[in-house]
Amino acid sequence: MKINLFNQDSAAESFAAGSTLFREGDEGRDMFVVLSGSIEIVVRGRMVETVESGGIFGEMALVDHRPRIATAVVKSDAKVVRIDEKRFLFLVQQNPFFSLQVMAVIAERLRRMDERL
Amino acid sequence: MKINLFNQDSAAESFAAGSTLFREGDEGRDMFVVLSGSIEIVVRGRMVETVESGGIFGEMALVDHRPRIATAVVKSDAKVVRIDEKRFLFLVQQNPFFSLQVMAVIAERLRRMDERL
Repeated sequence: MKINLFNQDSAAESFAAGSTLFREGDEGRDMFVVLSGSIEIVVRGRMVETVESGGIFGEMALVDHRPRIATAVVKSDAKVVRIDEKRFLFLVQQNPFFSLQVMAVIAERLRRMDERL
Repeated sequence: MKINLFNQDSAAESFAAGSTLFREGDEGRDMFVVLSGSIEIVVRGRMVETVESGGIFGEMALVDHRPRIATAVVKSDAKVVRIDEKRFLFLVQQNPFFSLQVMAVIAERLRRMDERL
Protein backbone atom coordinates (compact mmCIF):
# COMPACT_ATOMS: atom_id res chain seq x y z
CA MET A 1 0.00 0.00 0.00
CA LYS A 2 1.76 3.14 -1.21
CA ILE A 3 0.79 6.73 -0.79
CA ASN A 4 1.99 8.98 -3.57
CA LEU A 5 0.43 12.26 -2.58
CA PHE A 6 3.55 13.62 -1.01
CA ASN A 7 6.41 12.99 -3.38
CA GLN A 8 6.79 16.65 -4.27
CA ASP A 9 6.48 17.87 -0.74
CA SER A 10 9.02 20.51 0.08
CA ALA A 11 8.79 19.91 3.83
CA ALA A 12 10.51 16.53 3.81
CA GLU A 13 12.76 15.83 6.80
CA SER A 14 15.90 13.72 6.62
CA PHE A 15 16.90 11.16 9.24
CA ALA A 16 20.11 9.15 9.41
CA ALA A 17 20.16 5.39 9.87
CA GLY A 18 19.87 4.55 13.54
CA SER A 19 17.75 7.59 14.45
CA THR A 20 14.61 6.99 16.45
CA LEU A 21 11.56 8.97 15.29
CA PHE A 22 9.41 7.99 18.23
CA ARG A 23 9.25 5.38 20.96
CA GLU A 24 6.52 3.13 22.30
CA GLY A 25 4.64 5.06 24.98
CA ASP A 26 5.48 8.51 23.60
CA GLU A 27 2.75 11.03 23.16
CA GLY A 28 2.56 11.94 19.50
CA ARG A 29 0.14 13.37 16.98
CA ASP A 30 2.03 13.08 13.71
CA MET A 31 2.04 10.44 11.07
CA PHE A 32 4.81 10.05 8.52
CA VAL A 33 5.01 9.24 4.83
CA VAL A 34 8.29 7.69 3.72
CA LEU A 35 9.78 9.26 0.58
CA SER A 36 13.03 7.29 0.60
CA GLY A 37 15.02 5.00 2.84
CA SER A 38 13.40 2.62 5.30
CA ILE A 39 11.98 2.61 8.80
CA GLU A 40 11.68 -0.34 11.15
CA ILE A 41 8.57 -0.59 13.32
CA VAL A 42 9.22 -2.34 16.62
CA VAL A 43 6.46 -3.45 19.01
CA ARG A 44 7.48 -4.77 22.42
CA GLY A 45 10.98 -5.44 21.20
CA ARG A 46 9.88 -7.28 18.07
CA MET A 47 10.43 -5.86 14.61
CA VAL A 48 7.01 -6.22 13.01
CA GLU A 49 7.46 -4.31 9.77
CA THR A 50 9.84 -2.36 7.55
CA VAL A 51 8.22 0.69 5.95
CA GLU A 52 9.72 1.89 2.67
CA SER A 53 9.09 4.52 0.03
CA GLY A 54 5.37 5.31 -0.26
CA GLY A 55 4.56 3.66 3.05
CA ILE A 56 3.18 5.37 6.14
CA PHE A 57 3.65 4.90 9.86
CA GLY A 58 2.59 6.65 13.04
CA GLU A 59 -1.03 6.90 11.89
CA MET A 60 -2.36 5.02 14.91
CA ALA A 61 -1.86 7.87 17.37
CA LEU A 62 -3.67 10.23 15.02
CA VAL A 63 -6.62 7.92 14.73
CA ASP A 64 -7.11 6.96 18.37
CA HIS A 65 -5.22 9.64 20.30
CA ARG A 66 -3.38 7.16 22.44
CA PRO A 67 0.36 6.93 23.12
CA ARG A 68 2.58 5.37 20.48
CA ILE A 69 2.21 1.62 20.39
CA ALA A 70 5.45 1.12 18.46
CA THR A 71 8.98 2.44 18.21
CA ALA A 72 10.12 3.73 14.80
CA VAL A 73 13.82 3.43 14.00
CA VAL A 74 15.48 4.52 10.76
CA LYS A 75 17.05 1.47 9.12
CA SER A 76 18.57 3.21 6.12
CA ASP A 77 18.89 7.00 5.70
CA ALA A 78 15.38 8.25 5.15
CA LYS A 79 13.37 11.21 3.96
CA VAL A 80 9.91 11.49 5.43
CA VAL A 81 7.02 13.94 5.34
CA ARG A 82 5.45 14.67 8.69
CA ILE A 83 1.66 15.06 8.74
CA ASP A 84 0.20 16.70 11.80
CA GLU A 85 -3.37 16.31 12.98
CA LYS A 86 -4.66 19.40 11.23
CA ARG A 87 -3.32 18.26 7.89
CA PHE A 88 -4.45 14.70 8.51
CA LEU A 89 -8.04 15.84 9.12
CA PHE A 90 -7.87 18.06 6.06
CA LEU A 91 -6.74 15.12 3.93
CA VAL A 92 -9.49 12.87 5.30
CA GLN A 93 -12.05 15.55 4.50
CA GLN A 94 -10.75 16.41 1.07
CA ASN A 95 -9.49 13.14 -0.23
CA PRO A 96 -11.46 9.91 0.19
CA PHE A 97 -8.62 8.04 -1.50
CA PHE A 98 -6.30 9.08 1.31
CA SER A 99 -8.81 7.77 3.89
CA LEU A 100 -9.08 4.45 2.08
CA GLN A 101 -5.32 4.13 1.94
CA VAL A 102 -4.93 4.79 5.65
CA MET A 103 -7.63 2.21 6.37
CA ALA A 104 -5.88 -0.27 4.11
CA VAL A 105 -2.53 0.24 5.83
CA ILE A 106 -4.01 -0.36 9.27
CA ALA A 107 -6.01 -3.32 7.98
CA GLU A 108 -2.89 -4.85 6.46
CA ARG A 109 -1.14 -4.57 9.82
CA LEU A 110 -4.11 -6.11 11.60
CA ARG A 111 -4.20 -9.03 9.16
CA ARG A 112 -0.54 -9.63 9.74
CA MET A 113 -1.07 -9.66 13.50
CA ASP A 114 -4.13 -11.88 13.25
CA GLU A 115 -2.09 -14.36 11.24
CA ARG A 116 0.20 -14.71 14.26
CA LEU A 117 -2.67 -15.95 16.42
CA MET B 1 -16.09 3.24 19.15
CA LYS B 2 -19.73 3.57 18.19
CA ILE B 3 -21.24 4.47 14.87
CA ASN B 4 -24.63 6.13 15.15
CA LEU B 5 -25.34 6.93 11.52
CA PHE B 6 -27.57 3.95 11.01
CA ASN B 7 -30.00 3.77 13.89
CA GLN B 8 -32.96 4.78 11.78
CA ASP B 9 -32.08 2.50 8.93
CA SER B 10 -35.12 0.66 7.59
CA ALA B 11 -33.04 -2.08 5.99
CA ALA B 12 -31.96 -3.72 9.22
CA GLU B 13 -31.70 -7.51 9.13
CA SER B 14 -32.42 -9.74 12.12
CA PHE B 15 -30.32 -12.75 13.07
CA ALA B 16 -30.97 -15.29 15.81
CA ALA B 17 -28.38 -16.24 18.40
CA GLY B 18 -26.13 -18.94 16.99
CA SER B 19 -26.37 -17.74 13.37
CA THR B 20 -23.14 -17.30 11.45
CA LEU B 21 -22.94 -14.14 9.33
CA PHE B 22 -19.72 -15.10 7.64
CA ARG B 23 -16.78 -17.45 8.08
CA GLU B 24 -13.04 -17.03 7.93
CA GLY B 25 -11.97 -17.52 4.31
CA ASP B 26 -15.33 -16.48 2.80
CA GLU B 27 -15.39 -13.97 0.01
CA GLY B 28 -17.38 -10.98 1.17
CA ARG B 29 -17.81 -7.30 0.40
CA ASP B 30 -20.20 -6.14 3.11
CA MET B 31 -19.58 -4.60 6.47
CA PHE B 32 -22.18 -4.56 9.24
CA VAL B 33 -23.30 -2.06 11.84
CA VAL B 34 -24.86 -3.60 14.95
CA LEU B 35 -28.14 -1.98 16.03
CA SER B 36 -28.92 -4.40 18.85
CA GLY B 37 -27.76 -7.73 20.23
CA SER B 38 -24.16 -8.88 20.02
CA ILE B 39 -21.80 -10.60 17.61
CA GLU B 40 -18.71 -12.61 18.47
CA ILE B 41 -15.67 -12.26 16.24
CA VAL B 42 -13.58 -15.41 16.08
CA VAL B 43 -10.11 -15.59 14.52
CA ARG B 44 -8.50 -19.00 14.14
CA GLY B 45 -10.81 -20.46 16.73
CA ARG B 46 -10.22 -17.72 19.28
CA MET B 47 -12.93 -15.26 20.26
CA VAL B 48 -11.16 -11.93 19.94
CA GLU B 49 -14.03 -9.50 20.40
CA THR B 50 -17.74 -9.07 21.08
CA VAL B 51 -19.34 -6.33 18.97
CA GLU B 52 -22.44 -4.68 20.41
CA SER B 53 -24.85 -1.88 19.55
CA GLY B 54 -23.12 0.87 17.58
CA GLY B 55 -20.15 -1.33 16.74
CA ILE B 56 -19.09 -2.48 13.29
CA PHE B 57 -17.53 -5.63 11.90
CA GLY B 58 -16.66 -7.04 8.49
CA GLU B 59 -15.01 -3.79 7.39
CA MET B 60 -11.69 -5.46 6.65
CA ALA B 61 -12.81 -7.18 3.46
CA LEU B 62 -14.17 -3.86 2.19
CA VAL B 63 -10.90 -2.12 2.83
CA ASP B 64 -8.45 -4.67 1.46
CA HIS B 65 -10.61 -6.91 -0.78
CA ARG B 66 -9.27 -10.08 0.72
CA PRO B 67 -11.24 -13.05 2.10
CA ARG B 68 -12.75 -12.77 5.57
CA ILE B 69 -10.11 -13.06 8.25
CA ALA B 70 -12.66 -13.81 10.98
CA THR B 71 -15.87 -15.69 11.60
CA ALA B 72 -18.84 -13.67 12.89
CA VAL B 73 -21.34 -15.53 15.07
CA VAL B 74 -24.45 -14.01 16.63
CA LYS B 75 -24.15 -14.29 20.40
CA SER B 76 -27.52 -12.76 21.31
CA ASP B 77 -30.36 -12.07 18.84
CA ALA B 78 -29.16 -9.16 16.75
CA LYS B 79 -30.27 -6.51 14.32
CA VAL B 80 -27.63 -5.33 11.91
CA VAL B 81 -27.40 -3.01 8.92
CA ARG B 82 -25.48 -4.36 5.97
CA ILE B 83 -23.31 -1.87 4.09
CA ASP B 84 -22.15 -2.93 0.66
CA GLU B 85 -19.13 -1.58 -1.15
CA LYS B 86 -21.03 1.09 -3.07
CA ARG B 87 -22.56 2.50 0.08
CA PHE B 88 -19.26 2.21 1.95
CA LEU B 89 -17.46 4.25 -0.72
CA PHE B 90 -20.28 6.78 -0.70
CA LEU B 91 -19.99 7.15 3.06
CA VAL B 92 -16.20 7.54 2.88
CA GLN B 93 -16.63 10.24 0.24
CA GLN B 94 -19.45 12.10 1.91
CA ASN B 95 -18.70 11.71 5.56
CA PRO B 96 -15.17 12.18 6.93
CA PHE B 97 -16.47 11.30 10.38
CA PHE B 98 -17.44 7.85 9.11
CA SER B 99 -13.92 7.36 7.70
CA LEU B 100 -12.36 8.35 10.99
CA GLN B 101 -14.61 5.96 12.88
CA VAL B 102 -13.74 3.05 10.61
CA MET B 103 -10.04 3.87 11.03
CA ALA B 104 -10.50 4.00 14.79
CA VAL B 105 -12.25 0.63 14.90
CA ILE B 106 -9.49 -1.07 12.93
CA ALA B 107 -6.84 0.73 14.99
CA GLU B 108 -8.46 -0.42 18.22
CA ARG B 109 -8.36 -4.01 16.99
CA LEU B 110 -4.74 -3.66 15.96
CA ARG B 111 -3.78 -2.25 19.36
CA ARG B 112 -5.50 -5.15 21.04
CA MET B 113 -3.57 -7.61 18.88
CA ASP B 114 -0.28 -5.79 19.39
CA GLU B 115 -0.82 -6.04 23.13
CA ARG B 116 -0.80 -9.81 22.77
CA LEU B 117 2.72 -9.80 21.35
